[in-house]
Amino acid sequence: MKAKIVITPKKAVLDPQGKIVQNALEHMGYQGVAGVHVGKYIEIDLSPGTDAAAARKALDEACHRFLSNPVIEDYRLEIAE
Amino acid sequence: MKAKIVITPKKAVLDPQGKIVQNALEHMGYQGVAGVHVGKYIEIDLSPGTDAAAARKALDEACHRFLSNPVIEDYRLEIAE
Repeated sequence: MKAKIVITPKKAVLDPQGKIVQNALEHMGYQGVAGVHVGKYIEIDLSPGTDAAAARKALDEACHRFLSNPVIEDYRLEIAE
Repeated sequence: MKAKIVITPKKAVLDPQGKIVQNALEHMGYQGVAGVHVGKYIEIDLSPGTDAAAARKALDEACHRFLSNPVIEDYRLEIAE
């Protein structure tokens, strides 16, 4: 079982890394890019037999406490087989 | 339309950031964590009316050329509505 966590800057927060990637794409000739957001991706391998609901609860707390900064970042947590 | 790109270190490559997160989770008392991989997440907003197939081709090339480092990283590209 795997947990996949995507952490992105909140929409209202300046995202200089995203801006740089957007500029780079435009300079390289890629058309039609309206915006870019750059975030973090964390994939956690869970031991076999872990309870999905318990894992979700524990990881949700971990995301909130130290994997993301809730003041400036949003996170999305997914538990997958 | 959005393109979502997940860039992760290849399995054979040392992932010190992942190791640190794994240690942190263990120290904070989270059980059942077998491994952690930390990567990048890039979300690209595409202008309305962009052709999905053309966007996939262009972004696949962009991923290969400068968004990821194909020597040490894998990427996964998804085009979503």
